[in-house]
Amino acid sequence: MIDVTALTLEQKASLLSGRDFWSTTPIEDAGIPGIVLTDGPHGVRRQAGAADHLGLHRAEPATCFPPAVAVGSSWDPGVAARVGQAIGREARALGVAVLLGPGVNIKRSPLCGRNFEYYSEDPYLSGVLGVAQVRAQQAEGVGASVKHFAANNQETDRMRVSADVDERTLREIYLPAFEKVVTEAQPATVMASYNKINGVYASQNRWLLTDLLRDEWRFTGAVVSDWGAVSDRVAALVAGLDLEMPGTDGGTDAQIVEAVRSGVLEEAVLDDAVRRILALIEQHPAAGAAFDPDAHHALARDLAAECAVLLRNENEVLPLDAAASVAVIGTFAAEPRYQGSGSSRITPTRVDTPLGAIAAVARTVRHVPGFAVEDAVAAAAATDVAVIFAGLPDSAESEGFDREHLELPAEQVDVIRAVAAAARRTVVVLANGGVVSLEGWHDQVDAVLEGFLLGQAGGGAIADLLYGAANPSGHLAETIPVRLQDTPAFHNFPGEQGHVRYGEGVMVGYRHHTTAQAPVRYPFGHGLSYTTFETRDLSVDVTGDDTATVSVTVANTGVRAGRHVVQVYVATGAGPVRRPVRELRAFTKIRLEPGEQRTVELALDRRSFAYWDIEYGRWVVAPGEYHVQVGENAASVVAEQSITLTGDVIVPDLSMDSTVKEWFEHPVAGPALLQGIAAGMTPGQQAQAEQQQDQLRMVESMPMRQFAGFLGGAMPQAALDQLIEATRAAR
Amino acid sequence: MIDVTALTLEQKASLLSGRDFWSTTPIEDAGIPGIVLTDGPHGVRRQAGAADHLGLHRAEPATCFPPAVAVGSSWDPGVAARVGQAIGREARALGVAVLLGPGVNIKRSPLCGRNFEYYSEDPYLSGVLGVAQVRAQQAEGVGASVKHFAANNQETDRMRVSADVDERTLREIYLPAFEKVVTEAQPATVMASYNKINGVYASQNRWLLTDLLRDEWRFTGAVVSDWGAVSDRVAALVAGLDLEMPGTDGGTDAQIVEAVRSGVLEEAVLDDAVRRILALIEQHPAAGAAFDPDAHHALARDLAAECAVLLRNENEVLPLDAAASVAVIGTFAAEPRYQGSGSSRITPTRVDTPLGAIAAVARTVRHVPGFAVEDAVAAAAATDVAVIFAGLPDSAESEGFDREHLELPAEQVDVIRAVAAAARRTVVVLANGGVVSLEGWHDQVDAVLEGFLLGQAGGGAIADLLYGAANPSGHLAETIPVRLQDTPAFHNFPGEQGHVRYGEGVMVGYRHHTTAQAPVRYPFGHGLSYTTFETRDLSVDVTGDDTATVSVTVANTGVRAGRHVVQVYVATGAGPVRRPVRELRAFTKIRLEPGEQRTVELALDRRSFAYWDIEYGRWVVAPGEYHVQVGENAASVVAEQSITLTGDVIVPDLSMDSTVKEWFEHPVAGPALLQGIAAGMTPGQQAQAEQQQDQLRMVESMPMRQFAGFLGGAMPQAALDQLIEATRAAR
Repeated sequence: MIDVTALTLEQKASLLSGRDFWSTTPIEDAGIPGIVLTDGPHGVRRQAGAADHLGLHRAEPATCFPPAVAVGSSWDPGVAARVGQAIGREARALGVAVLLGPGVNIKRSPLCGRNFEYYSEDPYLSGVLGVAQVRAQQAEGVGASVKHFAANNQETDRMRVSADVDERTLREIYLPAFEKVVTEAQPATVMASYNKINGVYASQNRWLLTDLLRDEWRFTGAVVSDWGAVSDRVAALVAGLDLEMPGTDGGTDAQIVEAVRSGVLEEAVLDDAVRRILALIEQHPAAGAAFDPDAHHALARDLAAECAVLLRNENEVLPLDAAASVAVIGTFAAEPRYQGSGSSRITPTRVDTPLGAIAAVARTVRHVPGFAVEDAVAAAAATDVAVIFAGLPDSAESEGFDREHLELPAEQVDVIRAVAAAARRTVVVLANGGVVSLEGWHDQVDAVLEGFLLGQAGGGAIADLLYGAANPSGHLAETIPVRLQDTPAFHNFPGEQGHVRYGEGVMVGYRHHTTAQAPVRYPFGHGLSYTTFETRDLSVDVTGDDTATVSVTVANTGVRAGRHVVQVYVATGAGPVRRPVRELRAFTKIRLEPGEQRTVELALDRRSFAYWDIEYGRWVVAPGEYHVQVGENAASVVAEQSITLTGDVIVPDLSMDSTVKEWFEHPVAGPALLQGIAAGMTPGQQAQAEQQQDQLRMVESMPMRQFAGFLGGAMPQAALDQLIEATRAAR
Repeated sequence: MIDVTALTLEQKASLLSGRDFWSTTPIEDAGIPGIVLTDGPHGVRRQAGAADHLGLHRAEPATCFPPAVAVGSSWDPGVAARVGQAIGREARALGVAVLLGPGVNIKRSPLCGRNFEYYSEDPYLSGVLGVAQVRAQQAEGVGASVKHFAANNQETDRMRVSADVDERTLREIYLPAFEKVVTEAQPATVMASYNKINGVYASQNRWLLTDLLRDEWRFTGAVVSDWGAVSDRVAALVAGLDLEMPGTDGGTDAQIVEAVRSGVLEEAVLDDAVRRILALIEQHPAAGAAFDPDAHHALARDLAAECAVLLRNENEVLPLDAAASVAVIGTFAAEPRYQGSGSSRITPTRVDTPLGAIAAVARTVRHVPGFAVEDAVAAAAATDVAVIFAGLPDSAESEGFDREHLELPAEQVDVIRAVAAAARRTVVVLANGGVVSLEGWHDQVDAVLEGFLLGQAGGGAIADLLYGAANPSGHLAETIPVRLQDTPAFHNFPGEQGHVRYGEGVMVGYRHHTTAQAPVRYPFGHGLSYTTFETRDLSVDVTGDDTATVSVTVANTGVRAGRHVVQVYVATGAGPVRRPVRELRAFTKIRLEPGEQRTVELALDRRSFAYWDIEYGRWVVAPGEYHVQVGENAASVVAEQSITLTGDVIVPDLSMDSTVKEWFEHPVAGPALLQGIAAGMTPGQQAQAEQQQDQLRMVESMPMRQFAGFLGGAMPQAALDQLIEATRAAR
């Protein structure tokens, strides 16, 4: 370890910003090398020549693995881990010390242009996948940078907008995936996002970067800025931001030096940041390694096949028979869309096309390029099955801007409808980073395979799935709504005049749709298979005041091997806050041979039942009943068992500001109060009081101070004071 | 005018709180009488004996006029004025100086238990009616107290809850009705509400009570607390609250004295408040006057007939023929529900029952008390028409608590369905303070007359409407939703743990339903008549940069005289904020004989087009296109004309923090920038730049500081500084 005291003030400051776009500043005299940080997270974007943060310039070839939108749909931490391991190896081979990813932001609105870089609308699913990817990547010696911390859920005005969001919503929805990755996978770095949170830039947010991240979550790595996210360098450093990227040619280093010299900044703060950067450099030597592009391409194909989601398969039109003649229609068959635009854009080692992969299997293929209705209809009419490759073009979604609607381009919808009317069987394969509307054509086609963006080997994976070499096992990690208007952030996305109100609170994604009974085309968690599964023998055991274990048996009742996702949701009405109808709290994906059955056990920890209590400023498990539900998806429960938890027994303080209801419901004061009142009444008064019970609902919300005042002497202050004392003693 | 300097400190303090529940503290030595303030606002609740603020104890008899929910549905400031005038007279007769009302809070959720005391979900409609009522009441010499100021939109936890609401929403939705009443009707007092706004009690909120109310709106009257709303007396006084009610037996007066003595409170602040209370007392001597209970009862009947809303009238089943035999079914026929519970509860001078009034008209009446299915079915089968009096019982809604659902009691729905199946014709008359769900039975009945709460003469008015002595002309002042889940505050009402998030922002009521295309059973503004109207010849003239006049002709094309409401909405996409699909900006109610037509002119002022701009902190009319729409209701536009307004031409400042989009769209900098860039490019570069246009969307939201940095020397700082100077010069 380099001795910080041996460095000059200027040298120390220089370590806290990049030498250039992609590397830290070396200090040769002190034997401190620079290390390279580059964009991920589904491949290595190592720019050699002109540098930018927008994916505009080419990079060294690397394997483009399935982006996070696809990994999310795998519902398999094993998939995330294999991606992490492989890109870790490629990063080392390309001399990269820290690969920037994964992104665990929550898909608050389907319109977010960067949703393809994020796993899910659910924080637990996002967290589990993020942990797996970070652990595997870092096991290869390459640091991760979990991003974009935090509440960076849109591209519109992303560099300035304030995410105005209450703490319960932050704690329950937008922070848990970060928390899980930080506490369970110890990422080398956390990337501070561009936006503000409740008016304070994330990069200058001491609550976020220090109080929460370091003090509460015990993060020991380095905090790095998103590229260009630092507005006030000294304020950012004080808040807890260590490394500013890219470099500013020494401009902000000088500000740090000046701040120390003038006494505005304690040198100890600087030293702490420098120690963290030195540790980062030492621990990530980026020792070279080779990787096998062919093996990684094959891996990318295997993984992609686990990610695609079979949404619809009427009359088992899929898998296709290789002997059937097939019309392959649409631009994306030959020019696949397999990754998103922006800083995550990889220069792939090669690209499989669906057309090529289908041609390698099917005996008779008729190809219709583009979206020409007449050619498509003619081909569809002349073949056994039509497969249309539809989706969003690159220009429709990207880092840097958000979509304004969910529709496919109209010309594609025209082709789908015309082909569906002409073809014997119609299959639609979709390529899109954010979900698209299926309305207007869904019911007319036989099958829909949602590929999202599957990486460079996605074409092969799609052929594997269409022809049954692989069995679909992806499930939606985000809701497909019927209408944009039905989504919870509709009124509040992307905000205006520098602010975005998180008005839906915790009711994000399926939490909203299930709670408000808002219609969906396909619910979160939905996904079909070529085989069938049965869920049996759910049993839930309470293992403590606030924990339980779930045991459930799954059988493959079909004739093909396949993978099934056990989805465990928890539902409760306990506690003082409004809960979503159900929340995902555990899951596992298992592979079963035909006829095989297996019993899986899943633990539900304290957090599975807890809510964030803003009055106590901590997680609380409310005593009461909890329904543990196994769901086919978020909308459909196939097994359920209720348990009662002791939870956190909190005897609340009472004061004269507490309401009448709080007094009467208090475990100590309530009974005493009732007894005292009854004792002082004549039988006639008691009867009258019972008659007035309805009217008394009116005073429930009245503070005792006022209620007692209105009653005159009936509730003497001395008696109330005694009760307040008694409640304190009972705590 | 009493000389304030002649009073002792203790005397002055004593003037700022009540002597008791309902009167101010007199100072006999100084010749200062006490004046009486009592609850309204649809009648005088003058308690003689035991005092309370919950309507639990009886009061002197007074006419119970239609409550605000009904007056709102009249869409007629004339109705509000006649109520105001009459209750002013009664107040004087009962020795009341200030009658507490009207309530102009917005119906944010249909669940609010006190919605019956408020006019509407629309701020403009609420404001127009409030102005009319206050003016008329005060013309009688009785002061008004516009309440509950502000953002008091629920009963749950009403004494403590913080309404967490952004300023645009406050300014556009929750404050305009108060603003209109204060600036146009000069109410004697404004009542500060119980709740907090963004964490600060309304009664201690200096921004609300002083910066906004006095400095901006120029309010010169007195601010009085809601009964028991003061938490910290000295803080409240400093914030701008003059009179604390009820009195505290001198307890808080002593706090004021002590605060002045210890120097915590400037005596000048106290003196200002005292002067306002003295003025209030002097200007409201409450000189006695008589009133004619019979005439007021007849007035109450006339007014009630203008308030009820005919929701449905299939095959013109209404008006009924007096010769038809009628089954009168349901508890509310003989025991009408005509007012709400809580502090506004009037002891009526007498009460009309619908049963009695129908019996006075119809030749054959068969009465079925209560909600017994079998009796009701038998009566319905044996008569020509069944009229069911359904609604919410007193116990279902009240000041003090909110409802949890919108359903009628199940036994009533059972009766309605059974009767509808058995009767030849079925009419449902509803009595309810907040809207109820009509689902499950609406389509099975022939007519629905929504009476809401119609006051003590409502029974007679209902008979007048059912039998055609009066022609229905009420229109909904609030949306009737299909499901509670479709209402905009569904996820956020009534909040939790001391906070309620106004997550829907300005999208309240029909603003939400039209914008999100959320289904409604009946839209805001809906109401049928026994005659028909046609809207013709809409013409809109722009009269300035930000004003217009609307001229439209309405013809009565039916065979009965009737009243029609011209509803003018404005719709626009102009400006930087999300606008509701349309907003009510003007209306008038006119009476037309059969065959008569009339042209009405309505002015659209600056505010009709403005939004509240949080960046500039003021109302702004964005330049652009505005659609002026005449609506049959909020969902159905019958005539439309578009106009273009110059609006406020604001040349925004640019800085290095302004985004690339803001720079390129700037009227001065944008063209210069494009020219400069093109000039520096070779033709080949220009062609490439055009190709990359799609990719450039990515950088739109990037601050110029960062964009210029990424481009290296292509955009030199000196050139940008020159442009910044040029934009400043252009302002």
